[in-house]
Amino acid sequence: MKTVYSPDHRLRDAKTELSGGVLVPPFESPVRIDAIIAELEARPLGDIVAPQDHGLAPLERVHTTDYLTFLAECWSEWTAAGYEGEAIANTWPSRAMPLDRPPAEIGGRIGYYALAAETSINEGTWVAAQVAAHVALSAGKIVAQGERSAFALCRPPGHHAATDMFGGYCFINNAAVCAQAFIDDGARRVATLDVDVHHGNGTQQIFYDRPDVLTVSIHGDPSTTFPYFLGEATETGAGAGRGCNVNYPLPAGTAYDRWRPALDDALERITAFDPEAVVISLGVDTFEKDPISPFKLKSEDFRDYGRRLASLDRPTVFVMEGGYAVAELGANTVNVLCGFEEGTI
Amino acid sequence: MKTVYSPDHRLRDAKTELSGGVLVPPFESPVRIDAIIAELEARPLGDIVAPQDHGLAPLERVHTTDYLTFLAECWSEWTAAGYEGEAIANTWPSRAMPLDRPPAEIGGRIGYYALAAETSINEGTWVAAQVAAHVALSAGKIVAQGERSAFALCRPPGHHAATDMFGGYCFINNAAVCAQAFIDDGARRVATLDVDVHHGNGTQQIFYDRPDVLTVSIHGDPSTTFPYFLGEATETGAGAGRGCNVNYPLPAGTAYDRWRPALDDALERITAFDPEAVVISLGVDTFEKDPISPFKLKSEDFRDYGRRLASLDRPTVFVMEGGYAVAELGANTVNVLCGFEEGTI
Repeated sequence: MKTVYSPDHRLRDAKTELSGGVLVPPFESPVRIDAIIAELEARPLGDIVAPQDHGLAPLERVHTTDYLTFLAECWSEWTAAGYEGEAIANTWPSRAMPLDRPPAEIGGRIGYYALAAETSINEGTWVAAQVAAHVALSAGKIVAQGERSAFALCRPPGHHAATDMFGGYCFINNAAVCAQAFIDDGARRVATLDVDVHHGNGTQQIFYDRPDVLTVSIHGDPSTTFPYFLGEATETGAGAGRGCNVNYPLPAGTAYDRWRPALDDALERITAFDPEAVVISLGVDTFEKDPISPFKLKSEDFRDYGRRLASLDRPTVFVMEGGYAVAELGANTVNVLCGFEEGTI
Repeated sequence: MKTVYSPDHRLRDAKTELSGGVLVPPFESPVRIDAIIAELEARPLGDIVAPQDHGLAPLERVHTTDYLTFLAECWSEWTAAGYEGEAIANTWPSRAMPLDRPPAEIGGRIGYYALAAETSINEGTWVAAQVAAHVALSAGKIVAQGERSAFALCRPPGHHAATDMFGGYCFINNAAVCAQAFIDDGARRVATLDVDVHHGNGTQQIFYDRPDVLTVSIHGDPSTTFPYFLGEATETGAGAGRGCNVNYPLPAGTAYDRWRPALDDALERITAFDPEAVVISLGVDTFEKDPISPFKLKSEDFRDYGRRLASLDRPTVFVMEGGYAVAELGANTVNVLCGFEEGTI
């Protein structure tokens, strides 16, 4: 399995995350990807290749132009306004204050485009986010051209990013961009499967009324786990997309014995949908030692579920999402990919 | 004019405000009220009296019980969860993630009840917020019992607080509680006039469909001024309350020559509504030296508009809201009240 990777992920190197009422160094940081690259060098899966530049057009297929313009200009507008720290939203169109238009002032506009305040925007964020999407697109092209699978080792992650909102460390929805590119290249049906511990709210929102993209997510119950305000089992799609969104919210403390049946059910749903490609949003923050996860998967569980993913027997792109237990991040990630290779035969 | 005051405002003494991407000492702080008390001692207007305890019932007339329970329990739940800082929202039911129910986990639930992340909740906030409402209620009772006017020197302020949301330094909407109490005591019509530089979004939202409470606000254009997502002139009320909300958004840089005509128009609207009492949300952050204001009123302008407010010739309660230029805060506030006394004759 080839890995697509760019060192430009380092351009996303924020200093602050609003967590527990204080500003801390972000859990989502460049060392995460370093750890995975180190493991891939120790347990090689195949070539590590650079992404191709696909331009903005494929990003505009899932995000609005206004939103991409905001991402491109946010940091320069924020610094021009004289704000002291990184760009963090502190006001938003709330339930009680629902005026639905972006304000002119950047201190207000960032709140219009933000779905959470833990994620700051800083210099380099926009370039890194674009490159991450190109990593996912390039991995998709490798599979579209006939390879069984590919690994998009992208950062910043993407699955929380919606049509025109950032948050949860995500800016461009890399997995959604990749899935849409399969459709645009002629696939009739594509499935996304999100195994990150956090609900893939962005991917769900982007494709919610679409019958051609099945979106499936296994995650912590949103009543107790970020992103809190989406991810219930009752969210099954809308309009032509009704029935094409499947959520498996699971309680805090979920270990593999409870997680695996959800995966097996998800795989049945995906098989029934009969997609021409599968995009896996690969978050490994289901790990028992992850600092921001309520789940209890062990390292060997990742290998087992990698094998199960192979049983789908579909062209598969792995797109990196979360995972914050840096010491075991490489091993757990590569365990999934090795398991997939073993299961493929 | 009597002033109602309680030293319990000091119980609201947060350490952190999220502003410009950093955590700073809050602009809304106890020294604000100290400055006004000092000025009232230098230029006495009348007795300074303690508030009476009116209990929770009058607060529940404008806020939901769930919300008040959240405010009461937030700090203990937050600390029990092990969070390090003051309680600050970092995730909310956004446009892209609109699941409309409070999550169980306090880190998510605070985002359900927050309309901004600059305002932290800490120990003492809930008690101080209740006392502030009782200060406003007590001032209202003084007027209901026949005095021409009274000054509720309350803190924390209230006008951003909505039916079930806090933010903008506000938790309980003191002015709305006071206005509702007039109605509950038999008034057929009450008007609120918000002269704080920031839109009185909470007061507007609470009474938006009510024909018996006219809500009027003169404020910075929300496209460039907090709270950004409410306050347009097109917001005129809903249902039975249509026509009973009046907004005067004014551009950054507005000085008194532009502000005064808006006030005069507002006073005509109030006179036409013929209220039995008027509640003034008295923010003096329209001042030219205010650190978070785009307006340019001078100290003498406050005295002039105090006189104009008296021309309404209605029982009037002044309820303290914002104002952050501490050195001139007392003078500007008392200028309004002195002007009102002069205009009353």
